[in-house]
Amino acid sequence: MTLVPLGDRVVLKQVEAEETTKSGIVLPGQAQEKPQQAEVVAVGPGGVVDGKEVKMEVAVGDKVIYSKYSGTEVKMDGTEYIIVKQNDILAIVK
Amino acid sequence: MTLVPLGDRVVLKQVEAEETTKSGIVLPGQAQEKPQQAEVVAVGPGGVVDGKEVKMEVAVGDKVIYSKYSGTEVKMDGTEYIIVKQNDILAIVK
Amino acid sequence: MTLVPLGDRVVLKQVEAEETTKSGIVLPGQAQEKPQQAEVVAVGPGGVVDGKEVKMEVAVGDKVIYSKYSGTEVKMDGTEYIIVKQNDILAIVK
Amino acid sequence: MTLVPLGDRVVLKQVEAEETTKSGIVLPGQAQEKPQQAEVVAVGPGGVVDGKEVKMEVAVGDKVIYSKYSGTEVKMDGTEYIIVKQNDILAIVK
Amino acid sequence: MTLVPLGDRVVLKQVEAEETTKSGIVLPGQAQEKPQQAEVVAVGPGGVVDGKEVKMEVAVGDKVIYSKYSGTEVKMDGTEYIIVKQNDILAIVK
Amino acid sequence: MTLVPLGDRVVLKQVEAEETTKSGIVLPGQAQEKPQQAEVVAVGPGGVVDGKEVKMEVAVGDKVIYSKYSGTEVKMDGTEYIIVKQNDILAIVK
Amino acid sequence: MTLVPLGDRVVLKQVEAEETTKSGIVLPGQAQEKPQQAEVVAVGPGGVVDGKEVKMEVAVGDKVIYSKYSGTEVKMDGTEYIIVKQNDILAIVK
Repeated sequence: MTLVPLGDRVVLKQVEAEETTKSGIVLPGQAQEKPQQAEVVAVGPGGVVDGKEVKMEVAVGDKVIYSKYSGTEVKMDGTEYIIVKQNDILAIVK
Repeated sequence: MTLVPLGDRVVLKQVEAEETTKSGIVLPGQAQEKPQQAEVVAVGPGGVVDGKEVKMEVAVGDKVIYSKYSGTEVKMDGTEYIIVKQNDILAIVK
Repeated sequence: MTLVPLGDRVVLKQVEAEETTKSGIVLPGQAQEKPQQAEVVAVGPGGVVDGKEVKMEVAVGDKVIYSKYSGTEVKMDGTEYIIVKQNDILAIVK
Repeated sequence: MTLVPLGDRVVLKQVEAEETTKSGIVLPGQAQEKPQQAEVVAVGPGGVVDGKEVKMEVAVGDKVIYSKYSGTEVKMDGTEYIIVKQNDILAIVK
Repeated sequence: MTLVPLGDRVVLKQVEAEETTKSGIVLPGQAQEKPQQAEVVAVGPGGVVDGKEVKMEVAVGDKVIYSKYSGTEVKMDGTEYIIVKQNDILAIVK
Repeated sequence: MTLVPLGDRVVLKQVEAEETTKSGIVLPGQAQEKPQQAEVVAVGPGGVVDGKEVKMEVAVGDKVIYSKYSGTEVKMDGTEYIIVKQNDILAIVK
Repeated sequence: MTLVPLGDRVVLKQVEAEETTKSGIVLPGQAQEKPQQAEVVAVGPGGVVDGKEVKMEVAVGDKVIYSKYSGTEVKMDGTEYIIVKQNDILAIVK
């Protein structure tokens, strides 16, 4: 059972707290917009979204920093996913 | 008696709680925007909606995760439907 | 005496409560946006509305589900009408 | 002394309460948006308004239903006028 | 010393209260948007403003009804001026 | 050390209170939007800003009336500057 | 480990307080929008962002004044970064 995102949406899996500590990334809490590190698990096809051409620029496996503000959490088969628009992904961590 | 959605609207039928449990999907409550799993029962023709070309990408029978925030509930012949814009559908569950 | 709607506006006549019961449609009250079943009694010419081309897709006699949120009620010759934009019509009931 | 409206603006003169009663039109009060019947007394030239081409579709003498929400009241030579954008006119009464 | 407005801005000089009384124009106070009669003293060049072509349609000397809501008051050499966008001018009084 | 503004931004240096008095310009305080007289000290290159072509119409040395509402104050080498978008400049004082 | 910004995003590293004092730049606190001086450490590729072509105009090493209002803070390997959209950068300090 898998999630196939539509349009410019991307399915993310939050990186474990342990891993976050190991990489030395600390994400300060922010009331309005909580940035998060996560791994890309599925990428929508892009194309015309809300009348604008969107080219997908992240790939499955990318570690990304995203802004969780308008994301939607979904738990499936015991794993928690976050569905965001690509525009809510700020940077790729390399 | 059937609902024929206009433009980019999609008619959904909420998946039963039992079925949700069986598939292992748990959708955490969220005050602002309640994500939901549902089955597509009718799809609008798409076309130019609000001045923008919209191509319909879901089909009757698809199981989808949607954001119920701006959907409209309608009960017909004892069944409850939700009419959403395709843009409120986040992902297809396969 | 008739109402001739401008642009993409549509004049609706609410379907009687009796008829609603007969068809088995129950529309749950919702504080923010009250969906309604109604019959189309007049359709505007469409054309360029707010800079966007609008094609009218409903016809006189159609039974429709609409979102009353931004509609305007007018009572004329003892009958109550609602003037909505076509975009506020969610689906045709067939 | 006359009011010459600019762009897509229309000058209206409210139809008297007496006349309203005679025609059988009753306009229910609404806190947010008060619909009104009025007669068109002057019509702007239309053209490009806020970057969009607007074609004027009402004429002097038309009886119209308008949404007073964003109109501006002006009293001149003892007569009260309302200046609205054509988009605030919902229908012509014929 | 003169004010040369930029873009689609217009410099107005409020018509004196005496003159207002003489012309019989009474402008009822309105909390949100105070309409005003004024004389045009300078007109911007128009052109592309915020990505949209604006053609100036008022001329120096015109008496106008404007919506003061987003205007800016400036006092220079003892005279009070109001700088508005042409779009805030509702009608010319002739 | 100088400030080089990006896009349609303009760097202003507030005109001294003494000079303001000399020129006879009095700018009444306004809670929401404080108009100000200032001198242009640097002008951005213009070009495509937020998807719209912007042509710069002010020049270094111009005395301008601006709306401080969305400006940003910066103090550098003891002088206070204000960085505004050209659209926040209402008029040139000549 | 590095941050690779997407689209029109720019990764900044705040300039140390010591350095700020040396350069004589004082940035007054502002509740709504805190301007900041920072150094550019990574620049996104630009391109079509939200349907609009964006050309990147800052380069790695530039000292910039930015508006922190919608930026996102990220701490990585003990260094604090801010990810902003290029449009939130007001000026380059030279």
